[in-house]
Amino acid sequence: MDRLIEKANVLIEALPYIREFWGKTVVVKYGGAAMIDERLRQSTAEDIVLMKYVGMNPIVVHGGGPSINEMLKKLGITPQFSPQGLRITDDKTISVVEMVLSGVVNKDIVALINRVGGHAVGISGKDGGLLYAVKKYADDGTDIGQVGRITKVETKVIQVLCESGFIPVVAPLATDEFGGVWNINADTVAGDIASAMRAEKLVFLTDTPGLLRDPSNPETLIHQLPSNEVQRLKEEKIISGGMIPKIESCLKALDHGVRKTHIIDGRIPHSLLLEIFTREGLGTLVYLS
Amino acid sequence: MDRLIEKANVLIEALPYIREFWGKTVVVKYGGAAMIDERLRQSTAEDIVLMKYVGMNPIVVHGGGPSINEMLKKLGITPQFSPQGLRITDDKTISVVEMVLSGVVNKDIVALINRVGGHAVGISGKDGGLLYAVKKYADDGTDIGQVGRITKVETKVIQVLCESGFIPVVAPLATDEFGGVWNINADTVAGDIASAMRAEKLVFLTDTPGLLRDPSNPETLIHQLPSNEVQRLKEEKIISGGMIPKIESCLKALDHGVRKTHIIDGRIPHSLLLEIFTREGLGTLVYLS
Amino acid sequence: MDRLIEKANVLIEALPYIREFWGKTVVVKYGGAAMIDERLRQSTAEDIVLMKYVGMNPIVVHGGGPSINEMLKKLGITPQFSPQGLRITDDKTISVVEMVLSGVVNKDIVALINRVGGHAVGISGKDGGLLYAVKKYADDGTDIGQVGRITKVETKVIQVLCESGFIPVVAPLATDEFGGVWNINADTVAGDIASAMRAEKLVFLTDTPGLLRDPSNPETLIHQLPSNEVQRLKEEKIISGGMIPKIESCLKALDHGVRKTHIIDGRIPHSLLLEIFTREGLGTLVYLS
Amino acid sequence: MDRLIEKANVLIEALPYIREFWGKTVVVKYGGAAMIDERLRQSTAEDIVLMKYVGMNPIVVHGGGPSINEMLKKLGITPQFSPQGLRITDDKTISVVEMVLSGVVNKDIVALINRVGGHAVGISGKDGGLLYAVKKYADDGTDIGQVGRITKVETKVIQVLCESGFIPVVAPLATDEFGGVWNINADTVAGDIASAMRAEKLVFLTDTPGLLRDPSNPETLIHQLPSNEVQRLKEEKIISGGMIPKIESCLKALDHGVRKTHIIDGRIPHSLLLEIFTREGLGTLVYLS
Amino acid sequence: MDRLIEKANVLIEALPYIREFWGKTVVVKYGGAAMIDERLRQSTAEDIVLMKYVGMNPIVVHGGGPSINEMLKKLGITPQFSPQGLRITDDKTISVVEMVLSGVVNKDIVALINRVGGHAVGISGKDGGLLYAVKKYADDGTDIGQVGRITKVETKVIQVLCESGFIPVVAPLATDEFGGVWNINADTVAGDIASAMRAEKLVFLTDTPGLLRDPSNPETLIHQLPSNEVQRLKEEKIISGGMIPKIESCLKALDHGVRKTHIIDGRIPHSLLLEIFTREGLGTLVYLS
Amino acid sequence: MDRLIEKANVLIEALPYIREFWGKTVVVKYGGAAMIDERLRQSTAEDIVLMKYVGMNPIVVHGGGPSINEMLKKLGITPQFSPQGLRITDDKTISVVEMVLSGVVNKDIVALINRVGGHAVGISGKDGGLLYAVKKYADDGTDIGQVGRITKVETKVIQVLCESGFIPVVAPLATDEFGGVWNINADTVAGDIASAMRAEKLVFLTDTPGLLRDPSNPETLIHQLPSNEVQRLKEEKIISGGMIPKIESCLKALDHGVRKTHIIDGRIPHSLLLEIFTREGLGTLVYLS
Repeated sequence: MDRLIEKANVLIEALPYIREFWGKTVVVKYGGAAMIDERLRQSTAEDIVLMKYVGMNPIVVHGGGPSINEMLKKLGITPQFSPQGLRITDDKTISVVEMVLSGVVNKDIVALINRVGGHAVGISGKDGGLLYAVKKYADDGTDIGQVGRITKVETKVIQVLCESGFIPVVAPLATDEFGGVWNINADTVAGDIASAMRAEKLVFLTDTPGLLRDPSNPETLIHQLPSNEVQRLKEEKIISGGMIPKIESCLKALDHGVRKTHIIDGRIPHSLLLEIFTREGLGTLVYLS
Repeated sequence: MDRLIEKANVLIEALPYIREFWGKTVVVKYGGAAMIDERLRQSTAEDIVLMKYVGMNPIVVHGGGPSINEMLKKLGITPQFSPQGLRITDDKTISVVEMVLSGVVNKDIVALINRVGGHAVGISGKDGGLLYAVKKYADDGTDIGQVGRITKVETKVIQVLCESGFIPVVAPLATDEFGGVWNINADTVAGDIASAMRAEKLVFLTDTPGLLRDPSNPETLIHQLPSNEVQRLKEEKIISGGMIPKIESCLKALDHGVRKTHIIDGRIPHSLLLEIFTREGLGTLVYLS
Repeated sequence: MDRLIEKANVLIEALPYIREFWGKTVVVKYGGAAMIDERLRQSTAEDIVLMKYVGMNPIVVHGGGPSINEMLKKLGITPQFSPQGLRITDDKTISVVEMVLSGVVNKDIVALINRVGGHAVGISGKDGGLLYAVKKYADDGTDIGQVGRITKVETKVIQVLCESGFIPVVAPLATDEFGGVWNINADTVAGDIASAMRAEKLVFLTDTPGLLRDPSNPETLIHQLPSNEVQRLKEEKIISGGMIPKIESCLKALDHGVRKTHIIDGRIPHSLLLEIFTREGLGTLVYLS
Repeated sequence: MDRLIEKANVLIEALPYIREFWGKTVVVKYGGAAMIDERLRQSTAEDIVLMKYVGMNPIVVHGGGPSINEMLKKLGITPQFSPQGLRITDDKTISVVEMVLSGVVNKDIVALINRVGGHAVGISGKDGGLLYAVKKYADDGTDIGQVGRITKVETKVIQVLCESGFIPVVAPLATDEFGGVWNINADTVAGDIASAMRAEKLVFLTDTPGLLRDPSNPETLIHQLPSNEVQRLKEEKIISGGMIPKIESCLKALDHGVRKTHIIDGRIPHSLLLEIFTREGLGTLVYLS
Repeated sequence: MDRLIEKANVLIEALPYIREFWGKTVVVKYGGAAMIDERLRQSTAEDIVLMKYVGMNPIVVHGGGPSINEMLKKLGITPQFSPQGLRITDDKTISVVEMVLSGVVNKDIVALINRVGGHAVGISGKDGGLLYAVKKYADDGTDIGQVGRITKVETKVIQVLCESGFIPVVAPLATDEFGGVWNINADTVAGDIASAMRAEKLVFLTDTPGLLRDPSNPETLIHQLPSNEVQRLKEEKIISGGMIPKIESCLKALDHGVRKTHIIDGRIPHSLLLEIFTREGLGTLVYLS
Repeated sequence: MDRLIEKANVLIEALPYIREFWGKTVVVKYGGAAMIDERLRQSTAEDIVLMKYVGMNPIVVHGGGPSINEMLKKLGITPQFSPQGLRITDDKTISVVEMVLSGVVNKDIVALINRVGGHAVGISGKDGGLLYAVKKYADDGTDIGQVGRITKVETKVIQVLCESGFIPVVAPLATDEFGGVWNINADTVAGDIASAMRAEKLVFLTDTPGLLRDPSNPETLIHQLPSNEVQRLKEEKIISGGMIPKIESCLKALDHGVRKTHIIDGRIPHSLLLEIFTREGLGTLVYLS
């Protein structure tokens, strides 16, 4: 009986957070280990479904993980690189990217969520004209193929699905007026959708404990990062590599009215739930200074 | 961190129950120790608010507890009894009953729920014409005063409050076409409201572990009671005393489409939550055989 | 037949007023003789129900009348006074105040209105978090106990009830974040609710013909009082005593967008109806100058 | 002041009727003196507007009065008669009938109602496909021209107008699938619309006190006529002439769910109001036996 | 089969226009040959009904055509003229004007539209208080009778009808607070309704190819007229006579947010459809420069 | 100009069909040449978008065409066959089937429709739990792998999309309670969705002129096939091969309330439009006898 009461207490502890986030939108960038490890996949799906049932509106944006490269390899497509070493998404590649993102990864997440009791609907940025993009060139002007920059987010299809009890799962592809397809960085898609939906939270599930001063030392986790310190940390190379699009998506989202943005450790089971339902939170909170 | 993950697991365990009861109505007859002991009061209020936030529609019906007798005593009103020993609710008494139920107990529960984050609205069966009654005589025909039998339940005021995010708290008084006031057994009110609302569950918070074969031995708890065994248990005097109106309210509610009825031990903290969010459940389940 | 046609003419005379006030909110501070005299009680209730049926949204706010003092006396609670002669609402007293306001007076008015065909729902400022307050000290800084000053009016519960065809009847009590209970001047409550609801009218039912230049001479009634003359009349002591909270509530309500405020003679049968449905009006109109 | 209170009492007397008819539909066949005498025109319009403002849904159906014959005469169109003496509505005549009904009488009533504060919208049975008809022959098979029998009532246009706060005023013309126009007896139109709308009441404003046993003696008014006595009264020639289509429309309407049908004296000012807002009522009530 | 595919191609060509105008309001001033010639009448009605079915909200405003003069003549009413030669709409005349507009022309158009499958509802500016007017004097101050200038457009009745699937057909008459009736230039009514409805388009069906530099030479059609050239063309007398109220209504409508205004040749079958569903368009487009 | 008027006439000819199908649901099984030939792809997409804009609710169900086999070949997966020669959809194969259906074909159709102005949203039967299935064995009991039989159609996601202006495009895959994926015959999916939606029409786009008595002779087209003749034609082997699932889906859909089912020649440009907007229709109509 004591164990039962203990359980009840845990539920009750969640009450203030349930109240706080009731009716709010949370965009989750789903990727890394949480997308590969079977136990983490299960726990993340449960977290998302619980969020929906306690009144929040979760929206999932995913990347492609290793599946795209595997498929490219299987199909014998050799990656092309620019003289500067940038990968070029040529026409053959973009076809495989879309096929894997929309036809494998996306539907796999849908199945995962539905199996634990949610009602997910998997779409890409092409569906309902959700994301429009134009060609994006590398910083040095190189043509890197079908890589795009988002120019418009038409949230209607997402809103309609959220309001009808569904959990939208979005593959990071955009379209244009000619029906073309563009590959977009998934972190950027998550940030742009969070902005357009004026989400309460934007959460990146990553394979790090958050932003670390010293990447080799988890103890150096920066728990809270005001937006006006980002520039300095970039100059100090503390923000670098894959952290850059994440942090920039955070800043852009904050600018567009998103309340809080988080970079958390997807390798911890139920990290999403813990971030939302405990006072301490997990990982790094980036907030408007 | 392990402790945190443990917590997350508890929340996730609740998921199937949250899904099952989403949008369902649960009528709680609130009374006994859960209404007196400060810690139990707090835990019950938390349970009710949590139920609301995870999508259920709790409705609270309360009795008067010892407050009525205290006030009668303070005001020097001597209880009247019929030759057969039945208490008579004369005009002076009914005034005090209404004053204490509507003005003390009801508002006290409202404050309790609101303090833990709910939005309770306290009404009596007079408000919005919720409960209409006619005079009820004792079994032997004795006039026992302003004690009534419910003839109509107009659920509109309750429904409007539930749909607007409020938790209705109902004092067990009824009115009539002349604006009179009638005292009604709170167990009966809970059952009749559950019937009229076609509630999913009707739960009685009591000061016993449930229905016991041997009242002195908690080990003899009857976990599940099919409705067709009630008559026999009454004849064997296993169902007797205060259990009678509870069990009868259960039967009537089951007849009117309520899915499950429960008699649980309000002396256990969070008993309400445990009944709803664990497979084993607590106390006695009375169900349609 | 002539008498019948005469009757029809009276109904037709009301037509322009019915049109004018269709869909508008009117807050009625109910008190004084209109709350005690049986004939006046009946006529006032009829007026309120008629207002509802011809398309207006009446909201009733009541005081406690002599009932509180009677009950304090019956319970042997001696009133406490500050050195300056102010009554102190100590903990024992506030319990009785709430019990009588919410459990006797409020439900009595509900029964009265429902008996003549309305659908009243009685609540206090605690219900649905309608009124929040903080402690108010006497002008000289004396602690006068559980007497509060309103800090927030959450009109949702009232709006929901009005829109669903009910007539809200409000007892002048407020709550705070700790679930406490505060006694508030009923005139102030009426004014604050009228402000928050952006009511069309705020009407005080009093035991005077209105604001009199010479209190002993009804002929000196001030029919119309522009708000910018209030200060002068206060200095001349023409506005004094119980008139002060009424006039101040009028001014505050006018500042918050209430169109017209009235102080009328509740001792005249159907004074409410006459104020609304005749060109002359009754009592004193206080308006924004 | 006494006179004022007297007025208030009249308003209050109307309360039970206002309650009873709130939200109900009343079809008024407007004709006779009430359509000609300026004072009666005004009082009838006021009655209709009051009905709307106290929550009823009045629908007005009118005939043509003497205006049609005047215009026919002015235009030099000689009435045609069948050998049996029936008037024949030939093509020239129907054009004038429509012109006068839709362009003079209908718009005149609209102006009348709007002038006293209503929002009338004048249509004919052609508008929105309200009334469809086929040719009707005289009882002896004679072709009497563009006189029709209603085959379908499409209430949508009326319902939309009622729900949006308008008072529909209907000219008794019908259409057919070829866009033709048919003249229909206005009493029949009123009855058929009342049936299709499942109205609460159908009221005929006439130039008699109601159905009289002896047409020359108003004292012989039949106050209440059960439907099963109609046949006998027809055989006794007590129901004859213009009373026949009225009584038959009453019977048909009663058969289709209209609750009460009335034949009242439109020559009495505010007869409509008096019928609805007094217990005695006016004229003859025809009800389902 | 080729002929069928050709047909399909025509439908498909219309697709971009259908998309562009979906949900938009188009006010059509209906007059001239399109109102008289049987084939043109039919084709115009078909155009309007098609517009409705492909998602637009057409509103038809009509003039009186020659019917008014015919009727005045039949009734022996001699037209009155002012010393300056202006026709005077005296009381007798306005009665005939209203009778013919509301009772003949309006209902005739309703029948026409309904015959080809639409759901038209014919009203005048009196209905639902759509148009209010005050007396308008000639430029030289002459009293020309019941000719009015619009002071208010209450679009509710039109909006309600459009939203419910009906096509409003409006006769150019206005009312005033006394229930009076005023004759208004139909072009002006069309423009004022387009303004009040913030229509997408205002289209005048005329008996010319559009605005011609040389009225005798259709080749001199001005295809596009920016609003800032109107004044010059007026001075050059290129805009003169009946073109003046049309062009002025266009300018006023453009000022009030109407997107495009057109003067087209109603003598061409389906000119309305061609204007809307072909890139070239017909007649003269007047647009905001 | 004549050419323009000719065009207008074609639009007008479509009016009765637009009226007839306004608000109706049409399920289109998209496949064959219409999915491969670029000109036919374009014309079919235009037809579907036009249907949406003129008020119908088109739902597209597609098969996989040759894309699946191509990809299987590219990936070096050798098709497996049962001893009886049935293809076996093993785990590797179903992964490719889903990847190609959801990630290539589905998104390709979405892009196609959006490019011509529609708002398509591509989903599979897994999304929103649209289609649930259980394993289906070959007629002789052979295990043919992940081939399923539909057990439940949850239309909510489709309905929500249709009502919000989107065109659902559905890949023929189903899920089960374990999150599995099942391949379903696309004709069957189209029929089951048409049944569940109580569609007005179910149209199969095929590579034949319809059902032919003699497959080698298009002149032997059966224009209309009453459902009670199907059995005989099957026995005569006139219905055979790929026609069987189509005809059976037609029969099942007719049984579930679909009004008309069609098998038409997708090789004719705009065949969909022609079937809907011409009296003759195309191909074979199967109807309930």
